[in-house]
Amino acid sequence: MRTGSNESTNRLEGRNAVLEALRAGGRSVKKIYIQIGFSGGSIQTILREAKQHDTMVSFVTKERLNQISETEKHQGIIAIVASYEYTSVEKILARAEEKGEAPFLFLLDGLEDPHNLGAIIRTANQAGTHGVIITKHRASGLTATVAKASAGAINYTPVAQVTNLANTIEQLKKKGIWFVCADMLGTRMYDLDLRGPVGLVIGNEGQGVSRLVKEKCDFIASIPMKGDIDSLNASVATGILAYEILRQRG
Amino acid sequence: MRTGSNESTNRLEGRNAVLEALRAGGRSVKKIYIQIGFSGGSIQTILREAKQHDTMVSFVTKERLNQISETEKHQGIIAIVASYEYTSVEKILARAEEKGEAPFLFLLDGLEDPHNLGAIIRTANQAGTHGVIITKHRASGLTATVAKASAGAINYTPVAQVTNLANTIEQLKKKGIWFVCADMLGTRMYDLDLRGPVGLVIGNEGQGVSRLVKEKCDFIASIPMKGDIDSLNASVATGILAYEILRQRG
Repeated sequence: MRTGSNESTNRLEGRNAVLEALRAGGRSVKKIYIQIGFSGGSIQTILREAKQHDTMVSFVTKERLNQISETEKHQGIIAIVASYEYTSVEKILARAEEKGEAPFLFLLDGLEDPHNLGAIIRTANQAGTHGVIITKHRASGLTATVAKASAGAINYTPVAQVTNLANTIEQLKKKGIWFVCADMLGTRMYDLDLRGPVGLVIGNEGQGVSRLVKEKCDFIASIPMKGDIDSLNASVATGILAYEILRQRG
Repeated sequence: MRTGSNESTNRLEGRNAVLEALRAGGRSVKKIYIQIGFSGGSIQTILREAKQHDTMVSFVTKERLNQISETEKHQGIIAIVASYEYTSVEKILARAEEKGEAPFLFLLDGLEDPHNLGAIIRTANQAGTHGVIITKHRASGLTATVAKASAGAINYTPVAQVTNLANTIEQLKKKGIWFVCADMLGTRMYDLDLRGPVGLVIGNEGQGVSRLVKEKCDFIASIPMKGDIDSLNASVATGILAYEILRQRG
């Protein structure tokens, strides 16, 4: 059965997320819902940007907005956007080449928590990576919660989705990219040379990096742990390792 | 009006959180609810630890467990624990002295998101800080969600709550502690000397560090940002700065 349109849509919730989407071009924002009575600086800016991009704006009641909301944290504003599109691994590499930079990628092996995925895409953007590669099965995809947690970074940093991460790593190694995977039993990150074209591999929140993927990695890096518990939050660990890579790149 | 007991309780949800609490001494765990039919390695370990500490265990239906749950992510197990207790700033300093280490503290200025607070307490534990100081007003306190996000670190890393963070900083400066606050307009973190007794100040998710608190800080440190958006997630930023401090301490 076919419906009228093949295009799927998604929600983007909260002032920052909506504003970032508009600023990133406005192309994907179909419509904006604002809660009746809401005003203030950020709403004015959003209205201005929406006008500039000819984006439709509707003022609705709080009850209506709550119905539309997926995250229940809409802060009085929701945008309907074309679904987040995945890019290809090739396009991520082309991006590095265009910029004349050694590829710097994040690869997420079965990351489940959408807040972590969003925070990692945000970090990927700030750390200047060329893209994020995620897995298809038992992993969070690009949802409204991810978009909100990414604080708009999802509009700038491309995300590719692959079925078999070990195969993808195998292919990318042929192109001269090294892979470092995060694991508490690895070598202290300060003692590894993390310069050059590099892919940082982060594992699932509970199980870490899967055995097959770990075997494909060139290095296993650990963050020094002085505490009483097992590990760090996945997005925090990604941030720490990514900035150690950046520091070494100078 | 008084009730029968002055002691308040809190919920701890999920296998790791419950197991960590039991392992941290079991003293604060009053009772454990396990979903009927749940078994497996981690449940067996929990039952063994519970027996060792004479902790009461009840097997209940999923519906009952859902009723008790605050986080809706109980993974079949909830523990009722004595409320998370705050420590004092003095006790945090005493901890550093006992260990013969220069004080290393996190100070959170109005952090609102319990997931961020939990992830930061987890990082505080792993980075070997002596404690976390949080603010009382318009900020997340120590809830079940915070405990779960801390992955048990809340049982090891002391948290003090203060009314006026600027005053606390003023007092601690008299004891020779330096304060570095995170702000994107600060000096690149690599260019600052972050060794010695140090307090890392992290601001609210939206507004950053408040003006009064920022004025009390000795340094303002920034994380290099190569991206298109404004900032990093608060717990990720805390992790990156904390590990730069650790790296410099060597």
